[in-house]
Amino acid sequence: MRFLIPLISSSITSGHYRIISRLLSAHSTKPQRSTLPPFFNCQPPSMAASEESLRKALAEKQSAVEAHGNAVRALKAAKASKPEIDAAIEALNSLKLEKSSIEKQLQAAVSGSDGDGALSREAFRQAAVNTLERRLFYIPSFKIYRGVAGLYDYGPPGCAVKSNVLAFWRQHFVLEENMLEVDCPCVTPEVVLKASGHVDKFTDLMVKDEKTGTCYRADHLLKDFCNEKLQKDLTISAEKAAELKHVLATLDDLSAEALGAKIKEYGITAPDTKNPLSDPYPFNLMFQTSIGPSGLSPGYMRPETAQGIFVNFKDLYYYNGNKLPFAAAQIGQAFRNEISPRQGLLRVREFTLAEIEHFVDPEDKSHPKYSEVVDLEFLMFPREEQMCGQSAKKIRLGDAVSKGTVNNETLGYFIGRVYLFLTRLGIDKDRLRFRQHLANEMAHYAADCWDAEIECSYGWIECVGIADRSAYDLRAHSDKSGVPLVAAEKFSEPREVEKLVIAPVKKELGLAFKGSQKNVVEALEAMNEKEALEMKTALESKGEVEFYVCTLGKNVPIKKNMVSISKEKKKEHQRVFTPSVIEPSFGIGRIIYCLFEHSFYTRPSKAGDEQLNVFRFPPLVAPIKCTVFPLVQNQQYEDVAKVISKSLTTAGISHKIDITGTSIGKRYARTDELGVPFAITVDSTKDVTIRERDSKLQVRVSVEEAALVVKSVTDGLRTWEDVWEKYPHHTSGSADD
Amino acid sequence: MRFLIPLISSSITSGHYRIISRLLSAHSTKPQRSTLPPFFNCQPPSMAASEESLRKALAEKQSAVEAHGNAVRALKAAKASKPEIDAAIEALNSLKLEKSSIEKQLQAAVSGSDGDGALSREAFRQAAVNTLERRLFYIPSFKIYRGVAGLYDYGPPGCAVKSNVLAFWRQHFVLEENMLEVDCPCVTPEVVLKASGHVDKFTDLMVKDEKTGTCYRADHLLKDFCNEKLQKDLTISAEKAAELKHVLATLDDLSAEALGAKIKEYGITAPDTKNPLSDPYPFNLMFQTSIGPSGLSPGYMRPETAQGIFVNFKDLYYYNGNKLPFAAAQIGQAFRNEISPRQGLLRVREFTLAEIEHFVDPEDKSHPKYSEVVDLEFLMFPREEQMCGQSAKKIRLGDAVSKGTVNNETLGYFIGRVYLFLTRLGIDKDRLRFRQHLANEMAHYAADCWDAEIECSYGWIECVGIADRSAYDLRAHSDKSGVPLVAAEKFSEPREVEKLVIAPVKKELGLAFKGSQKNVVEALEAMNEKEALEMKTALESKGEVEFYVCTLGKNVPIKKNMVSISKEKKKEHQRVFTPSVIEPSFGIGRIIYCLFEHSFYTRPSKAGDEQLNVFRFPPLVAPIKCTVFPLVQNQQYEDVAKVISKSLTTAGISHKIDITGTSIGKRYARTDELGVPFAITVDSTKDVTIRERDSKLQVRVSVEEAALVVKSVTDGLRTWEDVWEKYPHHTSGSADD
Repeated sequence: MRFLIPLISSSITSGHYRIISRLLSAHSTKPQRSTLPPFFNCQPPSMAASEESLRKALAEKQSAVEAHGNAVRALKAAKASKPEIDAAIEALNSLKLEKSSIEKQLQAAVSGSDGDGALSREAFRQAAVNTLERRLFYIPSFKIYRGVAGLYDYGPPGCAVKSNVLAFWRQHFVLEENMLEVDCPCVTPEVVLKASGHVDKFTDLMVKDEKTGTCYRADHLLKDFCNEKLQKDLTISAEKAAELKHVLATLDDLSAEALGAKIKEYGITAPDTKNPLSDPYPFNLMFQTSIGPSGLSPGYMRPETAQGIFVNFKDLYYYNGNKLPFAAAQIGQAFRNEISPRQGLLRVREFTLAEIEHFVDPEDKSHPKYSEVVDLEFLMFPREEQMCGQSAKKIRLGDAVSKGTVNNETLGYFIGRVYLFLTRLGIDKDRLRFRQHLANEMAHYAADCWDAEIECSYGWIECVGIADRSAYDLRAHSDKSGVPLVAAEKFSEPREVEKLVIAPVKKELGLAFKGSQKNVVEALEAMNEKEALEMKTALESKGEVEFYVCTLGKNVPIKKNMVSISKEKKKEHQRVFTPSVIEPSFGIGRIIYCLFEHSFYTRPSKAGDEQLNVFRFPPLVAPIKCTVFPLVQNQQYEDVAKVISKSLTTAGISHKIDITGTSIGKRYARTDELGVPFAITVDSTKDVTIRERDSKLQVRVSVEEAALVVKSVTDGLRTWEDVWEKYPHHTSGSADD
Repeated sequence: MRFLIPLISSSITSGHYRIISRLLSAHSTKPQRSTLPPFFNCQPPSMAASEESLRKALAEKQSAVEAHGNAVRALKAAKASKPEIDAAIEALNSLKLEKSSIEKQLQAAVSGSDGDGALSREAFRQAAVNTLERRLFYIPSFKIYRGVAGLYDYGPPGCAVKSNVLAFWRQHFVLEENMLEVDCPCVTPEVVLKASGHVDKFTDLMVKDEKTGTCYRADHLLKDFCNEKLQKDLTISAEKAAELKHVLATLDDLSAEALGAKIKEYGITAPDTKNPLSDPYPFNLMFQTSIGPSGLSPGYMRPETAQGIFVNFKDLYYYNGNKLPFAAAQIGQAFRNEISPRQGLLRVREFTLAEIEHFVDPEDKSHPKYSEVVDLEFLMFPREEQMCGQSAKKIRLGDAVSKGTVNNETLGYFIGRVYLFLTRLGIDKDRLRFRQHLANEMAHYAADCWDAEIECSYGWIECVGIADRSAYDLRAHSDKSGVPLVAAEKFSEPREVEKLVIAPVKKELGLAFKGSQKNVVEALEAMNEKEALEMKTALESKGEVEFYVCTLGKNVPIKKNMVSISKEKKKEHQRVFTPSVIEPSFGIGRIIYCLFEHSFYTRPSKAGDEQLNVFRFPPLVAPIKCTVFPLVQNQQYEDVAKVISKSLTTAGISHKIDITGTSIGKRYARTDELGVPFAITVDSTKDVTIRERDSKLQVRVSVEEAALVVKSVTDGLRTWEDVWEKYPHHTSGSADD
């Protein structure tokens, strides 16, 4: 996952960079509505239109209510007849009712199509998070010391889910694709992150409470203000609402100055104290430290794992037999010193990334295994549809690539592989979409970029970024280190190529420019092909041209005898080039959180008196695959349970024995809450029952077979349906909840 | 792995702590000889004795040579007869020969029993390290920027070995023992590491070059000086040699002042510049950083993973159904800002630890699975043997525990499990020993501590520490956080216990001491049982006692009516106590480096013209399990290779196809160097050969069976010998090297 795109502005020479802290930045969790650009080149979405007309209707109705109120007062003052006054009051009340009805409609419109949606999302999240925290899926870190915002521990079941997700990632990507996995340190010297741009540009804009010094993210305060105003203040005009929406949509593009101006204009103050705020200023989000005892070698905790791969490109290319394409991968911790973390596991200060850098010849971005994903069909959200305010739609991957919506085959291949990865983990395919970056979100050098976004109670969350970053990263490190990070294509036959040769005549230049000769020579040699050929033509026709030397800051006259410009033919045996890199980057913690939400549901207990929590994890990610319960406390049954436990261990199936005297129903409920897919209940010394978590169906299996049956289903060799078909069903109520 | 033991000195009240930076400190890589204590309570080892007598003999011979030289010169000056002078010269020469022979013996004695040992160890290491670096098992991090001392990347095969080692660790410990695995952040707030003692005491002593500011570890400079002197300067007296050895043996116990004094006394200067050095001062080895934007919350990169477990004790105990014993485990990065890292992968600034904290009732340290390890027999090196200068010897684990050499069953159980873990990875059992800590190495609170040490070219390396740390860590965090980290044993019947009750009579004390009353009350209440009972007796006999109140800094008179001291009987329903923790802590990088050395060997090529490198990794840790080679470049064979590759992928066997036209012998050599255990060579479309790496033996197997045969052996379901017995042998020279 790349958290930084130094976006060069349209004029390359201006050297002015804008930064979008992409994946974890404010807009990452915005509902799609507010990521719409401020201008539409086709019809705006109908919902926004209805909201606008409702605001207008509300304002009109408000005026009418006021006018009628005045009329009633005037009638009373003029001592009009009772029936006259009563009729006027009745009309006023009916106007008020109409106004209140419009208010309700508007309220519903701003909080989403379903009026109770926001509320039920919140309630759902609360139920899921309660279960997750109570069962130690995760724990606020250092809790006994009141914790640290943005740091979380995975407790035993969460840790098992995480290690299952990572093991599957390694299987699905590293092993199946023969990737070169590396493992680099988190501590990184400054020079590396200077080259990558993080030291200068990996920042968020921050404001401080002028009295207490408390820090806030400037864009968060502005965003909260706009959202609050839009959702809670129904009296604002349609124009004002449009302005606030425009601010939300352009939030990521605002400079420090523009952000500061808006904060002043809206009178935004510190949320906790209402004190005035400082002007916004950039805060670097890397954790800084010092390497070695001298204090002279600044270092940082890496903000991503990708740089460790780029700096090793030369060795990895050699390891791969000097052949392209190849992919390198890394799983590891990354760090981001958030100004004010929120949204639980979604915005944290330390997280696990899994990143792939697939190096490819920029002239050939085909992929040998592309045909394996070409027929996949899933929700895609191309740039075009976003600009038109449409929503994501099902597209066949092959069509998206052949139509050029997805830039190239390799990018398409990885989008397909990411889709397979996420859905196999248990992510709901109807709440997963691939959203293409808009032009203003993408780095100037990027060829194309798609985010796998997963919908959860916080909205659509960017969980995987899949970007074609062209040659940017390798070039940056080549330039800074002086070590060429390039690949070569050997020609089977030498090829003739035409090359531009610029040869300054130093003698003449020295006579003409004396001490400034060196500057002029360097400027001449730095011309690109177009400039040089223009100069050649001009010199041939006019004999002299004015030439701007930037290191001198002025024009100098160049005569025909001062430089020779020509095109020469050369034989070349190979083509040397900087590879392009296609980068799928996975925020593992975000994927896991969304997986928790997609897996969570509640169902009534048998008695119907309480709601029981269940995680429907597939066996692949379930923290424990199986529990073993002796139905009642009894030495014989416990011995059988131990025998089964031993065969499960031999089969490599993680499991747990529960010999407490608790009722079997309660024990089932306890493991359902951990997402354990199968329970073996020992109620005889010969046969046992196997219960499936979601269907609650049970089959009877011999003690000898039990472990193997569970293994075959958890390994994906057969389905629960196969088992249900093959083995006798267990229907006695005694062993169920 | 614990890097810190705050050793409290004999007087508990003095508050003077000594620190031993244990596992990664200087002595960790010292040969056993120099870890001997400075005084022996039995005979010193024979080698040291012979060295001492050789030094004496050499000094005597030197005096004899000098005396004889003088005699020869005197004869010459006195113009003695030629035969007389010749005879004297002959005697002198023979003395010189004898001296030179003693010098050689002494040289051999100081560089180890085998004179060429040091040299060949060095050559072996060079060969192994060359192969490791060339094949990218590891890479100095950020190499294109000239690297950072003490930071290394794992390249593709190293990374695969590491992830295999960690997967096996998880299987062998977490899954088989039902441990609670957690995953906590590296960024840690100061308060946690203040409580653990790291902020104040996790330091090494450092000296600076007074002119250039370059930093050195003070003990390393002194150690290098002593070793150099002992090994290279044969003229030093036996007394001087003994003194230097004493310095080496007590290096870890030296205070900053004592270390500084020795550096001055020996005239040690900066190694690079010969400039004078500063006095030694402590340097904290944690990487410091700042959490959040305010700059007011100092944090550190954790120096070990253990603290993350301790602070979660309360939740984990609850998760385990409030039952003891249970173990929690964590795998993760840890950081140590070394002053001047050396010894490659063995002393690094960032490393992976795998730590277990087994919580147990201090009154019952038995282990339910102890019987499974009781008959293991391996090299152990108890305290006693070290003090007597003996070497490690094979001991049956059960005997070591029953004789009390190993403190308790649980500690013994983990020693056995660690032995199984390391030897199954491929560590040579003859170069693995369990060394008990000497009394002066151990923390005051520790009950017992054993290190798994592995011998490699750097000497005996501590790779796993297995310590019974009693209640120290939980108590430290209870005290600092105010959250009780305790366990409770519920009694089946309430028990009657006798409790000491100290009841100061505040009215009388107020009258007597006025403003100091509070200090006196607190001091009275803080008495331990012995002190209180002594006071009770004294008050009963004398009516008044002198009582020292430390907060007042003086004695006060306490009369009989001022305090009531009694023993009362109470009924208790449970026993509340702080659990003991037994901590096996694994330095994964060190284990992997030792595994590299133990697996590495060379053998002549078929032509005998070069030495080929082989890593004999067991399939469990081999980075790739199998390679597939079409014998010659040919579409048919390549298709068969792809079919086999597909079935290997399905079977979950990591493998690589090599379709280059290189000779089969060279391709075998290439994969032997990566430690790949099996190669499948396709030389027909029906049958293929499978070659085993170390024996170079080959069998013929059908294309359909090939993947399954490899899988069965790599999964440990059968041995290569079984395969060799079952399948026809392939003896044609064509397909072998």
